[in-house]
This record gives sequence, structure tokens and C-alpha cells, in this order.
Amino acid sequence: MAAFSLPRTLAASFIALPLLGTAAMAQSTQDAATAARLRDTALKDDWGYRFLENETTLIGQRLAATDAEARAADWAEKTLKAAGFENVHREPVPMPAWIRGREEATVISPAPQHLVVTALGGSVATPADGIDAEIVLFREYSQLIAAAPGSLTGKIAVVTERMPRVMDGASYGAANPIRRAGPSEAARRGAIAYLHRSLGTDNHRIAHTGATNYQPDVTKIPAAALSNPDADQLERLAARGKTRVHLLLTPTVRENAQSWTVSGEVKGSEKPDEIVLIGAHLDSWDLGTGAIDDGAGDAIVAAAGKLIAALKPHPKRTLRVVLFGAEEMDYSGPAYAKAHADEAGHIVLAAESDFGARKIYTFLAPPGAARTPFVRTLADTITPLGIFMNPAPAQRSGDDIAPLHRLGVPVIAFRQNGLDYFDIHHTADDTLDKVDPRELAQNIAAWAAMAYLATQSDLDFRKLANAQ
Amino acid sequence: MAAFSLPRTLAASFIALPLLGTAAMAQSTQDAATAARLRDTALKDDWGYRFLENETTLIGQRLAATDAEARAADWAEKTLKAAGFENVHREPVPMPAWIRGREEATVISPAPQHLVVTALGGSVATPADGIDAEIVLFREYSQLIAAAPGSLTGKIAVVTERMPRVMDGASYGAANPIRRAGPSEAARRGAIAYLHRSLGTDNHRIAHTGATNYQPDVTKIPAAALSNPDADQLERLAARGKTRVHLLLTPTVRENAQSWTVSGEVKGSEKPDEIVLIGAHLDSWDLGTGAIDDGAGDAIVAAAGKLIAALKPHPKRTLRVVLFGAEEMDYSGPAYAKAHADEAGHIVLAAESDFGARKIYTFLAPPGAARTPFVRTLADTITPLGIFMNPAPAQRSGDDIAPLHRLGVPVIAFRQNGLDYFDIHHTADDTLDKVDPRELAQNIAAWAAMAYLATQSDLDFRKLANAQ
Repeated sequence: MAAFSLPRTLAASFIALPLLGTAAMAQSTQDAATAARLRDTALKDDWGYRFLENETTLIGQRLAATDAEARAADWAEKTLKAAGFENVHREPVPMPAWIRGREEATVISPAPQHLVVTALGGSVATPADGIDAEIVLFREYSQLIAAAPGSLTGKIAVVTERMPRVMDGASYGAANPIRRAGPSEAARRGAIAYLHRSLGTDNHRIAHTGATNYQPDVTKIPAAALSNPDADQLERLAARGKTRVHLLLTPTVRENAQSWTVSGEVKGSEKPDEIVLIGAHLDSWDLGTGAIDDGAGDAIVAAAGKLIAALKPHPKRTLRVVLFGAEEMDYSGPAYAKAHADEAGHIVLAAESDFGARKIYTFLAPPGAARTPFVRTLADTITPLGIFMNPAPAQRSGDDIAPLHRLGVPVIAFRQNGLDYFDIHHTADDTLDKVDPRELAQNIAAWAAMAYLATQSDLDFRKLANAQ
Repeated sequence: MAAFSLPRTLAASFIALPLLGTAAMAQSTQDAATAARLRDTALKDDWGYRFLENETTLIGQRLAATDAEARAADWAEKTLKAAGFENVHREPVPMPAWIRGREEATVISPAPQHLVVTALGGSVATPADGIDAEIVLFREYSQLIAAAPGSLTGKIAVVTERMPRVMDGASYGAANPIRRAGPSEAARRGAIAYLHRSLGTDNHRIAHTGATNYQPDVTKIPAAALSNPDADQLERLAARGKTRVHLLLTPTVRENAQSWTVSGEVKGSEKPDEIVLIGAHLDSWDLGTGAIDDGAGDAIVAAAGKLIAALKPHPKRTLRVVLFGAEEMDYSGPAYAKAHADEAGHIVLAAESDFGARKIYTFLAPPGAARTPFVRTLADTITPLGIFMNPAPAQRSGDDIAPLHRLGVPVIAFRQNGLDYFDIHHTADDTLDKVDPRELAQNIAAWAAMAYLATQSDLDFRKLANAQ
């Protein structure tokens, strides 16, 4: 014991040296410890899952600009206030409300049979007695694009291209024109209606909806998605000869309706004017109860924010949790960026959770920030959650954030395992049972750590991005 | 070469001895070789899968006693004739036709939302404007049975007991009273409608239909199955307080309708009056296209029979392939046994394929036959298919065969992997994509081997069973 003795303070320095070495690269050890504590608390806490259970049970579907979505906004305001957020309020998102009606499709010949379809969001209605027409089937979307003008006159165009199953969901972006532009491209060639294989990876008799966008120079034709097995069936029938289909869609539009974006804050203790914004979207499609799209995101950012709201003192910067309205109809992001354009310079970092509730496996750092103390500490904190840093810089983080990003707001992005996301996305199957509470908690743990470290950081992510 | 030389015939005897040793226990080596050849041919042949593809594509759903089922009977007759069967004909099955109508359910309060339901086969309709009532929810069926008379007056009874996922499907039998007897038991206690969690193991917003049977002494109340996620949702809502539901069902019944049973034969070359009967059912529920229930069975027995029909000479006994009508409505088996009661003594063995298209993993020998040459040769022939002999004797082999079995007809049974059968059974999801062509071929191989060896056998299975 006596052979080699040092004063206590010096001994402490020796022991502390490796820690200090890390600390020089990382955010303060105290911040790291707090982030780790938030992470571990999140893993044990079920507040987020109960939030999601209530949102999907007491509200259910929350189609933008409907009464159901307004009830969701009421509920969200109350819930955020009760959770300790400040400045909880809602902001209007003016928009027309698109309301699904009846949706029926049947093969008339050669073999009478029912088809499972769902109208695309924004689709116009068919005539009241529907449309009866021969189909022209394209197994690849490029074949429709290659079809000559007038070649589809009086026909129902059908595209049955299949979307591949991939972990990061990138195939959805690639397939998106089939739903977004397909109806217009079909109309341009004379088609009187449009059906496409759902942008989905399941094999259930459940169709995937989603918004379509009519191009300004074409006739708006009714458009719907087929379930995967029904698309297969049309392929088999079309291979055997002429196939006639009856389609009835009766959606309606209520003009001058309103969606709502709800937000709450954890006011910064030192730099309250510097805002870290984490968001998700409150609206959902009307077919399921919006559990993975995007109740899970709501639960993740609200639960992460709640854990930070409980810290005394609050972190230096302000944390803002935003639950966007009308994401599915493309209104929320642009409306928010427009309303908050003057404030955009104060939003130091933004991120959105909108890819379900499966585990996060990687994160993308803000551009130029990969070697900063913030990112290094974040990486260390969430490595035990099975999350690694992706070398690519974050270029996007959710559709609601994109318009802010275009105003110069830097983003950070988590990526979740999306292998089964498009089995469920935009369908009646988007219900609570699809969410694993432990995977949801892993998300909340990562978001809490990230949001805390970002609100405690002194870094100017904008400057780092511009220095790239 | 010269050191040890024997006459050719003696050498052949030496080599043949081990085979003869086996042959003494087995059917003739020639029968074994033919059975093995049929097995191997079946594995390479896609006729069965194309049969199933045509049945599900060109006909689709085949609800008993409807025009669609009659079209299926036409098609089946033509197909069996073209495949080389003799004595192809149809036999009428008189019955009422039950036709599904609209089926809508919504939670009225506390949170308005859509529920996915499907009417049980045979259910009466609700009043034209539906039923609005508070639910009484039982998480176990035994709790409904324990409820006092009158305790459900004016209420909708809801049973949410979950059916476990098991390989051999035995949980379905155990859960069956929930669907078969539940409506009557609820009515007996005053309920005005009945909902139950689908007898299904999936978690999709797709409900499982199936026949119900009203007991003669109770009021017939409308009855429907909830999808699993909707049953979960009602559990969560009921746990939070009073829940009111609106239910609308508009099925209709057409009396004096007719289903059809189609059969064909491979006439026996030596004992044409001794019949081996292999069957499946041609009718299906109306929600899907009846691929696994029971298009697969049709394809399996038809393809097995077709391979045997091609043998010259035909096997000794007659092989009869029967595609029953109206199995789902419980009419076909009794009707067939009644019409063929005089002939039952000539049916030496019977079996039905009605459990989808997954691989067979075991077979149950006819009672008393486990050590017979027929069973030993069958076991040897199908061991390479991954099928082992179960020590229990076969006591049943499909609902259509049961009434014949009660008339003394011995049965043999194959068991298939049913782990995912009840994900799909009786739903809109019962479509061709759920069938793996290779697994279907494995079934056909086993059935062809069994049917051939049974038609070549001299065994009296009835005598063996009675000697037990």
C-alpha cells in the first residue's frame, strides 16, 4: 500500500486523464452522463407506448382536416400540457378536406369477381354508376410512359409494377411516381381511370392508399390502388385475354377546411431563442388508426420531450416538439415553413420521426458535424442501443421538415428498420398491435439523448454545414 | 473376375435377397417402384398448380349453391374429363343459398371509428337500419357461458378469446363453439347481436367468416366475426368504459338452391367394385378465391388421380376422386353419404385433403393397418418427402368423409404444417399467392403414392379395423 503513494488529488488526476481525453472530443462528461441517464430512463418508461395506445384507441384514424383530426389536436394539446410542456398551442393549416366514399371494383369478364381497391387521396369520383371498361395492363410503369398518346382512349390503365422490400425504404421513393404521376400519365394517353398495384410489400387483400397529384394540363381521372393479390389476379386474367372491370369511387371534397399543427416547448435555460425542433405528424390516413404512420412518431418525440421537460434546470437551448397536421396531404410542412420563415434562422437543428416504430439502426449526422463533440457523444450514448453512425451527412429528415431545410435549417436523421414498414403503411392494417413497445422505447431513448445533447450543445450546425 | 464366380441366376438371387426380405413385409417391389416413380413424377409436374391457378383465376370464389359454384362444377367436369378420368359426372346437393350482403360495424362512442367485421355464414340480417347497442365484452368464451340468463338483454355480446397458433390446427376445433354456438348462447342470455374475435391467428384487418348453427330453441340473432386488431381495439375501449357499437348485416337466403359434387374415376383393372375414394371440396367461402380452402385440396387429389389414370394397366381397384360441393355449409358430406349409403361397403378406404397446401409432415395409418405391407411401403415411399408415420390410427380425414366413416368406411389421414393456415382460412386473403408450388407438389406426390398403393393393395382395411 505504502510502496507507491501519491497525493489524493494527483491520483484522481491520473484516473481522470483518460476521461478528460475523451471529454476533449466529446460534450462535457456531465452532459454525457445526463444523456445516458435519459436513454436508460426511456428504456424503462412506458409513457410513450401509453401515449400511442391512447392516440390510436381514443381517437383512431385522424384524416387531415376532419373532425377526427380536430379531436386529435384537442387531445394532443391536453396531453402535452399534462406532460409539462410550455407554450402548447395549435396553428391552423388551411386546406380542402378530401373524404373517402364508397370504393368498389369488380371484374365483369371473363370471370366475375370482386377486387380489393382503395381510392388514392385526392382522387376524383367516378360517375355515380361507375365506370365499366376494358383494362390495359402494364407490368412496368415505364411501359405506360412509353405508350403512345391516345393509345388508352376509353380504357382503364393498370400498372402492376411491384415495389421491392428494402431496409431503408428507398424503394418507396423510386416507386412514388406510379401513384403520384400515374393517373395524369394515363389520362394524357386517353385512359378514363387508373389502377395501380399498391406501393406495399405485403400479400394481403388490403390496399395501400396515399396522395396523388394531378398535373394541371390533364383531365383528372379516378385513381385507386389494388391490393397485391388483386394486382396478381389482373395480371393472370389479362394474360388470358380481354378483361373488363367496373370501378366505383365516390370521394368528396369539402373546401375551406382546416388541419391543425400542435406544438409545445421546453424553454431553454440559457439560450431560449435557439431552437432544436423535433417533429412527427398527427394526421393519419383514414383506413387504419395511424399507429406506425405516424402515431409512433408522435409518441417518440413527445416522450423524448417529456423526459427533457423534467430536467431541472432545462437544457440551454429550447426544445420544440411539433406534431404536424396534414402531412399525408402535403400541406403541413409548407404551411409551417411559411408561418415560421422569420424564425427559421433560430432553428438550430431539426428532425422528424415518420417511419414507424421499428428499431433505429443508424443515424446521419448534420453536414460537417461528424467529428464534433455533439456527434461523438451522441454516438457513444446510443451505441448500446445498437445504433451506429452512418458516414453520409443528413440531407433530409421527414417531409414536414423538408421546407424548413430548404430555408437553411440543418437536419439530423435517424434510420429505422423498415423491412416490414411497407407491409402496413397507408392501410387498414396500421394498428397498435403492429408496434413492439420495446422497439418504440429504443426510439424514444435515442431521440431523448439526441434532443438533450443538441439543446445542451454550443455548436452552430448552420456554420458547420456552410463550411463543407 | 474369375476367382469367385457364380452362375448368373444364383448371383442375382444373392443380390435380390435383401430386397426380397423387405418385400416380404412390403407390397410387391413392382408396386413400390411404381409408387416411387409416381412420387418423383409428381414433384416435377406442374399440372396440379396450373389446375389451382385456373380454378382461382377463371372461377374465383365458389360459394356453395351460387352461380359461381355452378361454373366451378362445369369447369371441374371438363377438366377431369380432359385429364383422363372416367365416369365424370355431377350429383346435386339440395340446400338453401346463403348470400352475404353489406356488413358494417362502427364504434359510436366513446370514439367513433370503423370496425372490420364479416357476417358468419348462415347469420340472419340485422334490421335494415342496423342495431345500435352497448357491448358486453367477454375475454373468454367461458365467461359468456357463465353469464346469467337475461344478463345480456338488449346488448351486443362480444367474445374476444384468442385462438392459439399450433401446427396441426387442433386449436380450431377447441375454439369452434365460439363461432358455432356463441350466437345461440348469447341470444339465450338476452343479447340482440353477437360479435366474436375471428378464429384466426393473423393480425390483419381481415375478418374470418365460417358457418354458425342456431340452436332450435333460441332467437336467431345477427352474428359476425371481428378482425383480430378490431377485437383488440374493443378490449381497450371496453376497459376504458361503456362502448356502443352500430352493426349492419344484410345477408339473404335463397331457398331450394343447389350445390354440386363432381367426381371422376380411374376404373380398377381387376376389382373395379372396390373403391378407394380421395376427395376435397370444390366450394369455398366468398371472400377470397378459395386457394388454400380448398382449391389446393382439389388440385392435390385431381393431380394425384390424373397420374394414376395415366398408368396402363390401371391399378386393381377403382380410384374415385370426389370434389364435394357445399362443405363450408355442412351439406356435402351428409348428402354424399346418404346418396351412396348402399355403396359404402364397397369403399375400401377414403381420405380428404382439406387443410391447405403446406407440406405434409406425417400420416396416420388406417386402424389396425400400421404393420401391413401397404402402410410399410407407403411409409418407405414418402419418407424422402419428409413424412413420417404417426403411431395414432386415423380416426378422421376431412369433414366430407366423416359421414362415410360413420357408415364404416376406413380412413387414412395426412397432416400438413398448419402453422399459418389459420392466418388465411375463411378470409379474403385466401388467394393463389399463398400457395407454394413446391409444397403443393409434395402433397400431390404423397397422395399419388398413397392412392396408387391403396388401389393395388389386397388388404381389407375394414376387417383390420374391426379386428382392433
